Amino acid sequence: MNMSRVRFSSEVSTDEDTASHQDNYHVEVYDEAPIVRGSNLRVVQDYNDTFMEEPDILAQYDDFHTIDWVRDRQRDRTRFRRMKRLKHGTIWERIKQANDAWGGWLVVFLVGLSAGLCAGVIDIGSSWMSDLKIGVCPANFWFNKESCCWSDDTAFDGSDDDCKQWKTWGEIFTGDSNSSASLYVLNYIVYVLSSLGFACLAVVLVRWVAPYACGSGIPEIKTILSGFIIRGYLGKMTLMVKSMSMMLAVAAGLSLGKEGPLVHVACCCGNFFSYVFAKYHRNEAKKREVLSAAAAAGVSVAFGAPIGGVLFSLEEVSYYFPMKTLWRSFFCAMIAAFTLKYMNPYGTGNLVMFYVEYDTPWKLFELLPFVFLGAVGGIIGAIFIKGNIWWCRKRKNSRFGAFSIAEVLLVAVVTAFLAFPNPYTRQSSSVLIQNLFRQCGPEDKSELCEYITNNKTINVNDPRYPGAEAGDGVVTAIWQLLLAAAFKLLITIFTFGLKVPAGLFIPSMAIGACIGRVVGIGMERLAFSNPDWLIFSSSCGKSINACVTPGLYAMVGAAAVLGGVTRMTVSLVVIMFELTGGLSYIVPLMVAVMISKWVGDAFIKEGIYDGHIHLNGYPFLDSKEEFTHTTLAADCMRPRKNDPPLTCITQDGNTVGELEQLIEESHFRGFPVIVDQESQRLIGFVLNKDLRIGLKHARIRNEDIVSASKVYFTEHSSLYSSPGQAVHLSLRHILDVSPIQITDKTPMETVVELFRRVGLRQTLVTHNGRLLGIITKKDVLRHIATLANQDPESILFH
Amino acid sequence: MNMSRVRFSSEVSTDEDTASHQDNYHVEVYDEAPIVRGSNLRVVQDYNDTFMEEPDILAQYDDFHTIDWVRDRQRDRTRFRRMKRLKHGTIWERIKQANDAWGGWLVVFLVGLSAGLCAGVIDIGSSWMSDLKIGVCPANFWFNKESCCWSDDTAFDGSDDDCKQWKTWGEIFTGDSNSSASLYVLNYIVYVLSSLGFACLAVVLVRWVAPYACGSGIPEIKTILSGFIIRGYLGKMTLMVKSMSMMLAVAAGLSLGKEGPLVHVACCCGNFFSYVFAKYHRNEAKKREVLSAAAAAGVSVAFGAPIGGVLFSLEEVSYYFPMKTLWRSFFCAMIAAFTLKYMNPYGTGNLVMFYVEYDTPWKLFELLPFVFLGAVGGIIGAIFIKGNIWWCRKRKNSRFGAFSIAEVLLVAVVTAFLAFPNPYTRQSSSVLIQNLFRQCGPEDKSELCEYITNNKTINVNDPRYPGAEAGDGVVTAIWQLLLAAAFKLLITIFTFGLKVPAGLFIPSMAIGACIGRVVGIGMERLAFSNPDWLIFSSSCGKSINACVTPGLYAMVGAAAVLGGVTRMTVSLVVIMFELTGGLSYIVPLMVAVMISKWVGDAFIKEGIYDGHIHLNGYPFLDSKEEFTHTTLAADCMRPRKNDPPLTCITQDGNTVGELEQLIEESHFRGFPVIVDQESQRLIGFVLNKDLRIGLKHARIRNEDIVSASKVYFTEHSSLYSSPGQAVHLSLRHILDVSPIQITDKTPMETVVELFRRVGLRQTLVTHNGRLLGIITKKDVLRHIATLANQDPESILFH
Repeated sequence: MNMSRVRFSSEVSTDEDTASHQDNYHVEVYDEAPIVRGSNLRVVQDYNDTFMEEPDILAQYDDFHTIDWVRDRQRDRTRFRRMKRLKHGTIWERIKQANDAWGGWLVVFLVGLSAGLCAGVIDIGSSWMSDLKIGVCPANFWFNKESCCWSDDTAFDGSDDDCKQWKTWGEIFTGDSNSSASLYVLNYIVYVLSSLGFACLAVVLVRWVAPYACGSGIPEIKTILSGFIIRGYLGKMTLMVKSMSMMLAVAAGLSLGKEGPLVHVACCCGNFFSYVFAKYHRNEAKKREVLSAAAAAGVSVAFGAPIGGVLFSLEEVSYYFPMKTLWRSFFCAMIAAFTLKYMNPYGTGNLVMFYVEYDTPWKLFELLPFVFLGAVGGIIGAIFIKGNIWWCRKRKNSRFGAFSIAEVLLVAVVTAFLAFPNPYTRQSSSVLIQNLFRQCGPEDKSELCEYITNNKTINVNDPRYPGAEAGDGVVTAIWQLLLAAAFKLLITIFTFGLKVPAGLFIPSMAIGACIGRVVGIGMERLAFSNPDWLIFSSSCGKSINACVTPGLYAMVGAAAVLGGVTRMTVSLVVIMFELTGGLSYIVPLMVAVMISKWVGDAFIKEGIYDGHIHLNGYPFLDSKEEFTHTTLAADCMRPRKNDPPLTCITQDGNTVGELEQLIEESHFRGFPVIVDQESQRLIGFVLNKDLRIGLKHARIRNEDIVSASKVYFTEHSSLYSSPGQAVHLSLRHILDVSPIQITDKTPMETVVELFRRVGLRQTLVTHNGRLLGIITKKDVLRHIATLANQDPESILFH
Repeated sequence: MNMSRVRFSSEVSTDEDTASHQDNYHVEVYDEAPIVRGSNLRVVQDYNDTFMEEPDILAQYDDFHTIDWVRDRQRDRTRFRRMKRLKHGTIWERIKQANDAWGGWLVVFLVGLSAGLCAGVIDIGSSWMSDLKIGVCPANFWFNKESCCWSDDTAFDGSDDDCKQWKTWGEIFTGDSNSSASLYVLNYIVYVLSSLGFACLAVVLVRWVAPYACGSGIPEIKTILSGFIIRGYLGKMTLMVKSMSMMLAVAAGLSLGKEGPLVHVACCCGNFFSYVFAKYHRNEAKKREVLSAAAAAGVSVAFGAPIGGVLFSLEEVSYYFPMKTLWRSFFCAMIAAFTLKYMNPYGTGNLVMFYVEYDTPWKLFELLPFVFLGAVGGIIGAIFIKGNIWWCRKRKNSRFGAFSIAEVLLVAVVTAFLAFPNPYTRQSSSVLIQNLFRQCGPEDKSELCEYITNNKTINVNDPRYPGAEAGDGVVTAIWQLLLAAAFKLLITIFTFGLKVPAGLFIPSMAIGACIGRVVGIGMERLAFSNPDWLIFSSSCGKSINACVTPGLYAMVGAAAVLGGVTRMTVSLVVIMFELTGGLSYIVPLMVAVMISKWVGDAFIKEGIYDGHIHLNGYPFLDSKEEFTHTTLAADCMRPRKNDPPLTCITQDGNTVGELEQLIEESHFRGFPVIVDQESQRLIGFVLNKDLRIGLKHARIRNEDIVSASKVYFTEHSSLYSSPGQAVHLSLRHILDVSPIQITDKTPMETVVELFRRVGLRQTLVTHNGRLLGIITKKDVLRHIATLANQDPESILFH
């Protein structure tokens, strides 16, 4: 058995068909030795099959490497065709084939299910632990406050202090249930201490068990989805630690949300289940389809917004999003939302988190304050991004970064200490948002709804209700809300980036909701004081008091700040409207988000996630940013001026030993294969790794292959080796005979476009038909960084 | 002034930088004559500017040509950079620049506005004309029935026969307002005759004024958006005729909807406004961004579904959809919906067309009938597609196609004749859908809600209400609905494809709603008769009668059939839920649509739009279909076996006369430019058209250029022509120096991927660095057709 006669069989006849008729190229095409057909075909097949039995080795990328989408897509289609042939095979083969066909749906189903379950557990756990800071349910200590009060028949509902079953820690320790200063202080101390404990536990878990569990995870997921490998980032350990420490961090009262991290958790589920199906496990490009769907499921469970989740995945995180994936992502998001709904963690039985229903529609003149809110949101977003990035850079570049545990504890103590006195910061951010979104009802006794009405039995339909004059509560609320917004903005700048899981959807929304509510109250009072102004009288008529709904302003403000921070657009509007169930408020939301993005872009071009991607130097080729420079491929290509020439392999003439030495000595990922050094005509590209494995296998399988054996990459290797010589080895089968080539004059904008759209890992550069150099994704990213006056070496590529 | 020394200035230094350091390539790169820098630069600039002044000529594609996205994108960025430089120019230049920057938003705003206006006018017009068949409002003849009845104070509401102001034609002619047989017959005759008249007018308009106005337009728009030019398809005349004849066709009572054509109308608006802005007008690729947004606006106004519209544009019609377009499309869709809402054509003040609100949530066991409805929808969809395509092919291939006017009239008469007797087909499809979606209320007196209740004052909360036993009305309704569904299915098969504007959203939904309602009534009765069955008792408990809502089944059925016909997925679910306002019914809708698609795909792979694209042979490269064959680029490439070799131009050595002759004689769109015939090394690609214009201009501008002048495509032409010789002409500036090249071994799946994603018009095929052939989009489409056993010549390419 002579392994040297291996060649890639299927292509030969095709080549003959198309090339032979062109007489003018004829001589060149057949400058290799003619083929001898015959009994060696069996050997070829055999060898290829053996080689193909180890697809894992060929498929796997190293950590921190970029994936080659073109190659992975080709591999998937090859796998698909092989599968298809099984249709006429044995029953077992047919089952395998059916499993393969349904695998895509099954895996997203499982991902959706598990994402929903994780979200439910995290919701329940964090709400229980949050309440544990304030008190406990002595009868059923595993109940949170709401469940505890629901289990108590004497209580009217779960709100505030009507509930007898629930005891604050002060009440338990002192046995005293009357409000007193000492009780307040005791509760305060317990609150701060337990916050500290939770925070400590959270950061220790992250620090010692799974360091990847910190942060929101969205920048990293964007990078992974764009075709980068970060091993362990979506691992089982990360999943568990992230879930646990997320509950703890939320319970610690830190100014962070669990919504962003839920995307990371869902992606971990996606990664886990894609291991079950070979077609995803062994193909990084296919795996990213599952991860896109998982990201959609993450947002879906975070906000109960399946459509918004899909759009988020499409707009914000995904890179390669074929239409087939759209439908599967939607399915996945629905299953996740449905699972969560059946778990019913909010106890409302409602998928919608902050359900609102306002009695009065919004008026056209209100677009003006909405535009204002949008501008404010954009400015706040820009302040947040600049502040946060500045602080994170400071932390990264100074010795301060080493004290991550101390930092978390410090922030937790400061947060707890400052948050407790203000009722709007004491309650959890999501409860705050819910309260701010609400419109005042006749039964409402909260401060926000303290309006002066002459008569307590006043009817809701009475035009005097509920506008009227603002009571003391409302006045107090205004400055408390403003303080709360300022405090939250400041503390969130220092919180996002700590070594705990931290999302910023909810904190940003809370900031926006506070400001929005204040603006809303202001508008309400303006309308009440000046009912005869044209804009009010024309739109509101007699019902001047019920004309402005401050809750709607809170909603719009929340969207504006979130838009300013994340720079999301369509997906944000859809998430907001799914979150609130208010289909009729799309226009206000859209106006605010649009203005917010424009204003924000004027100050700082990138959103918080892109900011963190740049900060951490992830190799992310943004598909939204336009490449506007006039450089050419030749400017980006390697080798550069004064570099040694490009390392190429000629199609024949190299020995096994030479190639082994080349692999050993060079740090390149792959080598172009050329006809000969003189003409520099390209015939293909071979990966370093493939070459290494190919040579190793050849040596193992055939003892005749020695260091002096000649290696051929030609289509048809000369069959007969001279008696005295070593046998030949053909490595045609590991040669990528279809590398993408561009000319050196190609504008970089087209090159970037190619890299983005086709998902290249490298492209070869030719000049007048001769190979001139190579451009890898790394080169493109460095080139872009150089043009943007950034340090090209800051990009993380190992 | 010697035009022969023209060269493309900016690239020279770049080339030097990158090439000179590579010693091994050094000799080759400079095989052209060295540059002589000097005073000629001014001439070059001058000439280039003049040439650039005629971008229209260079930009324009011929009718039925494919656009080159890569080139258009490059041109847009060049334009953008030129614009950017104006920032520091005069005020007028700055205004131009600001206009350019805001142009993108302004144009989608205008498109949204005009699409909304058109939709409003069409809605009002068609509803007025539809009612005109039945009667008239003598007091205000321009009122439709609803407005007429609203203007009448004596009427309770606009429903049925409570309205005194409105007179049927029979009443007017006879003066008799009592129901009688003769009145019925008279009304019947007027109904049929006016239908005929409207249909006649519609088809004559289309036939004689704007033939492109027929059909739904979606297959053509898909083709146009994929990068094909069909002049006049989106013209002003088409817009006007389509709007007019759409109203007439709807009023004629033909079984067609105005929703699909609205997408065409919106795209016409998009095309119209893109003429106002140079950046869209002169760039076909950019224009398609506006058209994508317009398509979203079309669906948005058709169904009052802005988000669904954007997803429809994304999933179904668009081809190249960058994220920037997503946000603009959403804006456009919102503006359109908002405009329509303010026009208020339905008189409900509601953006939502078929608003439903059911008292009872859906139960888990109902998923079973929903799956059944999905399967039925898929089967009906397949029947419809097969039937319609069969009939359209018959019409196309036989002499019958010539009698389009007669055919329309025949179908109109048959429709009117058969539709009148059945109350469910007599009313317009959208009213029918609305009625079928509704749940029965206590005040409901329609047949569909005729349940036997012992006591008229029975309370809604009473468990006996409204389930109870079905009355005679319901029993009658069942078979009438089944007849209506069968009739509509049959007649729509013959209607879609007539030479009138015809959409099939509404007819398909009507068919589905009929079947769904029947299934719903069946389930209701089943639950009523067997309340002790486990599935019913466990889910419904005591309120067995209010357990099943037949209206929901109608909704699900409508989605299922529409899904089966169009094979839309996410966008359909979102449209349905926006259409009905039922966020909580996403799961049933999704299940039905999913099953419907799977079942439908089992029978016939392509949706109705793709079917019509194939039928008409539009050159549409589907981005959703996977290319699964194992062919290589060499199999698809031209020249084929036995063809003459590829026509190439060498970089030097040709004379002006030779090239003029070549242009004259060949029918190719462009020619590869090579170093020399022997080595076949590629240096660029030149378009036939550019070459022709370039030569013509050169001759006009410089009289020294004669037929014997040598033409150079090299970077540096030899400056001094020998005294006796004619001057040289350099055409480097019209040479595309960055053509995309692939090797002949590239799998066709990768080639197709490149064509789809990058939007190529052609790619050059090399073998070992030598030019071997060319693949155009046309070749790819023919190759795909051949592999699918279709006639490759059926594809329409002029």
